[in-house]
Amino acid sequence: MKKKFINKKGLAPGNLEFHGEIVSENSLVEFIEFSTHKFNRHVSSNIEEISSKIDLNNQNWLSFVGLHNVDYLKIIGEKFKIHRLHLEDILNTDHRPKFEKQNNYLFFVAKLFSKTDGTTSNYEQISIIIGNSFVLTFQEKESDVFKIIKTDLERNDSKVRNSKCDYLFYRIIDSIVDSFYYSLEKVSSDIEVLENQIHDNPKSENHKQIQELKRELILLRKSAYPLREAISKLQKESSELISQDTSTYIGDVYDHCVQVLDGIETYRDLTSSLMDLYMTSMSNKMNEVMKVLTIISTIFIPITFIAGVYGMNFEYMPELTLKWGYPIAMLVMILLAVGMLFYFKKKKWF
Amino acid sequence: MKKKFINKKGLAPGNLEFHGEIVSENSLVEFIEFSTHKFNRHVSSNIEEISSKIDLNNQNWLSFVGLHNVDYLKIIGEKFKIHRLHLEDILNTDHRPKFEKQNNYLFFVAKLFSKTDGTTSNYEQISIIIGNSFVLTFQEKESDVFKIIKTDLERNDSKVRNSKCDYLFYRIIDSIVDSFYYSLEKVSSDIEVLENQIHDNPKSENHKQIQELKRELILLRKSAYPLREAISKLQKESSELISQDTSTYIGDVYDHCVQVLDGIETYRDLTSSLMDLYMTSMSNKMNEVMKVLTIISTIFIPITFIAGVYGMNFEYMPELTLKWGYPIAMLVMILLAVGMLFYFKKKKWF
Amino acid sequence: MKKKFINKKGLAPGNLEFHGEIVSENSLVEFIEFSTHKFNRHVSSNIEEISSKIDLNNQNWLSFVGLHNVDYLKIIGEKFKIHRLHLEDILNTDHRPKFEKQNNYLFFVAKLFSKTDGTTSNYEQISIIIGNSFVLTFQEKESDVFKIIKTDLERNDSKVRNSKCDYLFYRIIDSIVDSFYYSLEKVSSDIEVLENQIHDNPKSENHKQIQELKRELILLRKSAYPLREAISKLQKESSELISQDTSTYIGDVYDHCVQVLDGIETYRDLTSSLMDLYMTSMSNKMNEVMKVLTIISTIFIPITFIAGVYGMNFEYMPELTLKWGYPIAMLVMILLAVGMLFYFKKKKWF
Amino acid sequence: MKKKFINKKGLAPGNLEFHGEIVSENSLVEFIEFSTHKFNRHVSSNIEEISSKIDLNNQNWLSFVGLHNVDYLKIIGEKFKIHRLHLEDILNTDHRPKFEKQNNYLFFVAKLFSKTDGTTSNYEQISIIIGNSFVLTFQEKESDVFKIIKTDLERNDSKVRNSKCDYLFYRIIDSIVDSFYYSLEKVSSDIEVLENQIHDNPKSENHKQIQELKRELILLRKSAYPLREAISKLQKESSELISQDTSTYIGDVYDHCVQVLDGIETYRDLTSSLMDLYMTSMSNKMNEVMKVLTIISTIFIPITFIAGVYGMNFEYMPELTLKWGYPIAMLVMILLAVGMLFYFKKKKWF
Amino acid sequence: MKKKFINKKGLAPGNLEFHGEIVSENSLVEFIEFSTHKFNRHVSSNIEEISSKIDLNNQNWLSFVGLHNVDYLKIIGEKFKIHRLHLEDILNTDHRPKFEKQNNYLFFVAKLFSKTDGTTSNYEQISIIIGNSFVLTFQEKESDVFKIIKTDLERNDSKVRNSKCDYLFYRIIDSIVDSFYYSLEKVSSDIEVLENQIHDNPKSENHKQIQELKRELILLRKSAYPLREAISKLQKESSELISQDTSTYIGDVYDHCVQVLDGIETYRDLTSSLMDLYMTSMSNKMNEVMKVLTIISTIFIPITFIAGVYGMNFEYMPELTLKWGYPIAMLVMILLAVGMLFYFKKKKWF
Repeated sequence: MKKKFINKKGLAPGNLEFHGEIVSENSLVEFIEFSTHKFNRHVSSNIEEISSKIDLNNQNWLSFVGLHNVDYLKIIGEKFKIHRLHLEDILNTDHRPKFEKQNNYLFFVAKLFSKTDGTTSNYEQISIIIGNSFVLTFQEKESDVFKIIKTDLERNDSKVRNSKCDYLFYRIIDSIVDSFYYSLEKVSSDIEVLENQIHDNPKSENHKQIQELKRELILLRKSAYPLREAISKLQKESSELISQDTSTYIGDVYDHCVQVLDGIETYRDLTSSLMDLYMTSMSNKMNEVMKVLTIISTIFIPITFIAGVYGMNFEYMPELTLKWGYPIAMLVMILLAVGMLFYFKKKKWF
Repeated sequence: MKKKFINKKGLAPGNLEFHGEIVSENSLVEFIEFSTHKFNRHVSSNIEEISSKIDLNNQNWLSFVGLHNVDYLKIIGEKFKIHRLHLEDILNTDHRPKFEKQNNYLFFVAKLFSKTDGTTSNYEQISIIIGNSFVLTFQEKESDVFKIIKTDLERNDSKVRNSKCDYLFYRIIDSIVDSFYYSLEKVSSDIEVLENQIHDNPKSENHKQIQELKRELILLRKSAYPLREAISKLQKESSELISQDTSTYIGDVYDHCVQVLDGIETYRDLTSSLMDLYMTSMSNKMNEVMKVLTIISTIFIPITFIAGVYGMNFEYMPELTLKWGYPIAMLVMILLAVGMLFYFKKKKWF
Repeated sequence: MKKKFINKKGLAPGNLEFHGEIVSENSLVEFIEFSTHKFNRHVSSNIEEISSKIDLNNQNWLSFVGLHNVDYLKIIGEKFKIHRLHLEDILNTDHRPKFEKQNNYLFFVAKLFSKTDGTTSNYEQISIIIGNSFVLTFQEKESDVFKIIKTDLERNDSKVRNSKCDYLFYRIIDSIVDSFYYSLEKVSSDIEVLENQIHDNPKSENHKQIQELKRELILLRKSAYPLREAISKLQKESSELISQDTSTYIGDVYDHCVQVLDGIETYRDLTSSLMDLYMTSMSNKMNEVMKVLTIISTIFIPITFIAGVYGMNFEYMPELTLKWGYPIAMLVMILLAVGMLFYFKKKKWF
Repeated sequence: MKKKFINKKGLAPGNLEFHGEIVSENSLVEFIEFSTHKFNRHVSSNIEEISSKIDLNNQNWLSFVGLHNVDYLKIIGEKFKIHRLHLEDILNTDHRPKFEKQNNYLFFVAKLFSKTDGTTSNYEQISIIIGNSFVLTFQEKESDVFKIIKTDLERNDSKVRNSKCDYLFYRIIDSIVDSFYYSLEKVSSDIEVLENQIHDNPKSENHKQIQELKRELILLRKSAYPLREAISKLQKESSELISQDTSTYIGDVYDHCVQVLDGIETYRDLTSSLMDLYMTSMSNKMNEVMKVLTIISTIFIPITFIAGVYGMNFEYMPELTLKWGYPIAMLVMILLAVGMLFYFKKKKWF
Repeated sequence: MKKKFINKKGLAPGNLEFHGEIVSENSLVEFIEFSTHKFNRHVSSNIEEISSKIDLNNQNWLSFVGLHNVDYLKIIGEKFKIHRLHLEDILNTDHRPKFEKQNNYLFFVAKLFSKTDGTTSNYEQISIIIGNSFVLTFQEKESDVFKIIKTDLERNDSKVRNSKCDYLFYRIIDSIVDSFYYSLEKVSSDIEVLENQIHDNPKSENHKQIQELKRELILLRKSAYPLREAISKLQKESSELISQDTSTYIGDVYDHCVQVLDGIETYRDLTSSLMDLYMTSMSNKMNEVMKVLTIISTIFIPITFIAGVYGMNFEYMPELTLKWGYPIAMLVMILLAVGMLFYFKKKKWF
């Protein structure tokens, strides 16, 4: 699936509207309620039923999948007092990663990459809102990135189960940054495969593959730079919603994000080296072909001329009547050809 | 219409003079007066009539179209106490986007892009002045970008109708930033079309089209970077003319502007990839042609030589009198040709 | 006239010496004395006579043309208490634009471009010193850039006549920045002309012309960047010599300077696009030539071989005695040629 | 050994796990206990035995080689109260160089390069923890970089023996930065060798060698930039663990690190010059070959045509019956050939 | 003499050792003692004799030439209380230019360029230490750069004679910055010469010369950037060793240094333009050659085919027996050739 770099529908304020492609049929809400002694999980498409069950004395994680059902958002927006602009940001699936602090919650937007078999990355937008006793996540489609977190939440001895919402929030961001590694790995192995192919026998389709790698890296870079900014801002603007301990962990995520960026820049360099390699290989291959022509032409042109001379029909051409004329002519031609071959060899032309 | 990147007429201070091309015949003033309970709209070319109607207890939006009528500006300048340098900036349609704060008003200059059918962007300069109870906009020609705002103003339940001038000001800037998206979309689809064309059959006019895309992106970039600066400055320099609520909305516009810049940088990368693609495709096409020549030449040059040898007129050439001379010569030539073909095939030359 | 980018004579401190080329024969001083009610203008080559006339109760503008007369500088330096290093800077006509604040005056160095008919820019260094009631300007040669200011000074209703020296200073800097526009315009029209020429029929001299444009832009950039810095420093370091009102005007000049830099960067991009265009056009032109050779060769080589075959002198060549041998051979050759033409056409080789 | 730029196993928090390739079979701990009057050295694979011997009144240096034995780390982590995230960082051998300050210790991660005979660098990660009376170093495999430090520790008149742990820490970081010089030297001599080879006779494998140099420099750069940052942070964030005197020495290491970076950037420039040289040399070599073909073709094509003309079988060709026909034809051909040679010589084609 | 960019001998602390090439045989100390009324100059290779003569009530300048005599340094280091690390920096002749402030002195390292006849720059390291009443300079070999300063010191009316050590220090730094101008001048004239050569007749050795220019500029840049930093740091960190007056002069040196950097960047641009020029000239030259081949081939291939046709030995070829057959065939061939020439001329192929 090829994603546009810029969404078509403008960003005009007004009614809440979904700006994106509908990528999953149904909208679902997964509601996980947890505390050290309690763990409940509800999946429903009835937002009002879910909404009534929320107990703000527990930790609550509401995970929304499928954003085209705008009504859900309105109800949630009212219940948790989310700013209208943030609801709009959630619906605009082409938003730049960012972090914003509100009085009662923190708002975080990022891109989430998934594993794919295909050539181009599969990614979606994820928005996260963390309040005092709730975490809300909004995704376009289901992804298995958070499965480990959910398994950890079920175990009553896990750190995430026994911590506040801020640690859950850290785990989510950590998973997002990790999702970049999967894409980078794919790029890494693609570069290696391509490099070997081009070394063996460069083909014109390799150029297209390199272009796709470049495009992939542009996409990753475009998602990772603002993500770093967002995490950095999250670190700097201290909020009572994030504990000191979790803040240390977020520092670790920041380190990973910087490492992802390092990797992206490195692969950009390697991809442009690959392009160089492709160019040089193609040109070397062509030169090899041209050289053979050149050498064959250069050898045969003079001797063909000699044959042409003795093909002339002049009446008085003394050589023609000589008994040894033909063998001598042949010898001359052979000597000429061999001489030129030696000359070219000496000049290291082949 | 091809716009100059630098206006010819210098920027010498002195008399107020229009520095630009006259792009619309008549100068018009549209005067919209609104408050929660009131909405009046006058269109006139008589500035003094309009001027007398202005009631600074209401919200007033004066929209000027056509800047070559300098007298209008002088009257307006005096009425609203606009600094002389700002009047000059309005008249110089080649000004860099900027924001400036004055005691009694804020001054904002930007570029506004319009949809076009043609290949190059259609854009104009827009200057905005916002005071306590008035918004003044100055454009070179009419554009339909603000139609939605005007429709919203007519509806007495819209937010813009029930807010102060600062919200109207936000809506105008928001529309300006949105106008960049239209141009970017065009660039985006042009790149896609070009990419497919070049993949199928590169032509030399594609180079010109890529150059035009580059030029378009240079123009967009040149307009968007200072716009971001201007909005950022507007955000930072708090003014009592902009309420806290509107300030949040302007933060949102800033985000969009950053996103536009991200898009521009991405398309620049893609355009230079396109250039690479064009170069490589052209060179591959040429190489394909050259290879055929090379192979045909390399095969025929030696056998033509053989034919030449037996075209020689030596009296004593024993092969010529052999009964099987001709078929054997032909066989040798065919074997030579086939042998070379095999050799080239093995070398993966075609 | 081709200017060196770095002056040969080092910058060793020591005696005051002129480091530059003497570009105007005689050194002249133009002394303009003005206040709201008074305007006197003296041109003389006798510095002492001029010096005695200066009345520091009026506004005084001393304009020096021709810097090789070091004695003038010494007298002026003593009279107005100019720092020795600044006198040296004035004499070194290869100085970087800069601004420096002294107790009793401000020192400003810039480059001034003049209109020329030739291909390369004509520019000179200008140093300006503004004190409480005097402005001193030092130029290498006469230029008509300041003519408008002088005309305005004569008119007793002009702002510059009725203001302090700081406004005159602003007008001078404004003229300097404007002088960059003239050079940019030339570059702009040169680029347009070259682009059309290269599109029509690229020639090898176009390359040289593009190089000259690049060099011109390097020169402009080298002069404009430090100029922006200097103006910015002038704006920031408030001095009682510059009034609040003039400061606003200098902000305007700063805007223009930024715009000039924008223009320079844009033209740099366009020039490198032009280089691309030239390269591609040359290569396309060459390819077109090569293609014709390729096609003609590829068609004639095989049929020339056939002709060669029937030119062989074997005794037993049954085709030669056939009645229809010749027409059939011709037919085969024609069919071969036409077939190849069709094949190439289908492959879109021409 | 070719190292991946990004490690495959994500960085998910959870159980302590080794993320890397196991490069040395056995895990060893080297424990050096020293003070002015004492020096003991134990090597063991029994961490508990070592742990019991540690006396925090002395200076202690524990050097771990081989990180796949996670249990060691757990014991050490508890004994010295190392933060869990730091233990994870030690195990992830693909970590970015960094410095972090904790209450009771400083944590430092860097890359250590070793001398190799091969073409690509041999490097490993090293993590250093310095506390009040201990230095812990964690390496993937043994390296002889620290041999000098150990020898100095044995001598009871050496500065490192008579100083606190901070000086030992300085010596370790100094050795790490020095290890970059060895890699740079290799790059330096490789560039020189390659340059000479390419000047003499460029080969297509040279391209691959240049690519490897580039890759090497990318790797060095990726390791050196964050190292500089880390040392800079170490310098700025004063800690009571680092004495004033040692701080001066660390400033010196910082200088060396900057110099390494200077070197890397310089070699990057030189490598891309080398690429230029390779390209130009290959193209010059090809051009030389093509020129010979061109000249030979251009000379022989016209005279071969003349030979062809007199090979025609027309009945009435008066020249054919002339007695001097053949010698004259030969003369004409020779004159033509010599004439063209002169023309090409004059045009400086060879 | 080709200098390495990175010195081989690491920078391990330990014994004072000379890390560099010995470029001058003998180590000399020149001791100049001066005050307004006194001037003594001693040259000796006996450091202890010199050391005993130093009177710290006067101004003293000790200039060391030849650094391989480490004992000298030890004595001086003790006498003037120089930090060990600084002594090491003096001995490591590959140090990065830097400035450091100590309690009792300032330490400054820079590169000094000398005039040479050869192609590559001749430069050496110079370290300067300025204390209350002494200036120490350490050089690898003698250079005539400071001759002017010494001459000025002898004259008892010169400013340097009548000032404190700080002015002498300024004069030395000023001479160092000036020394860059000489190298830049050489680069400048080399570029000009090369440009003309390439325009007239590009040769393959020009490429090597451009590479050397690039390398030269890399070297200059690598020396000038940290020098600017060092001077800037010297300016900012006020020290009682530098008087207010001298500080102004150092500001002037800073300006010159920035100008040198401007020049270096400009020449880098020009050098890469030169590379473009070389590439284009070579390619144009080659194209010119190829075009001649192309045109000659394209004209002769078809007419040679016609000659081949009438060289066939078919029995029934009616044209052969025609009386006008031969002249008509010749006419057709000539017309064909002329027609093609016209066609190529019209297409502007030559």
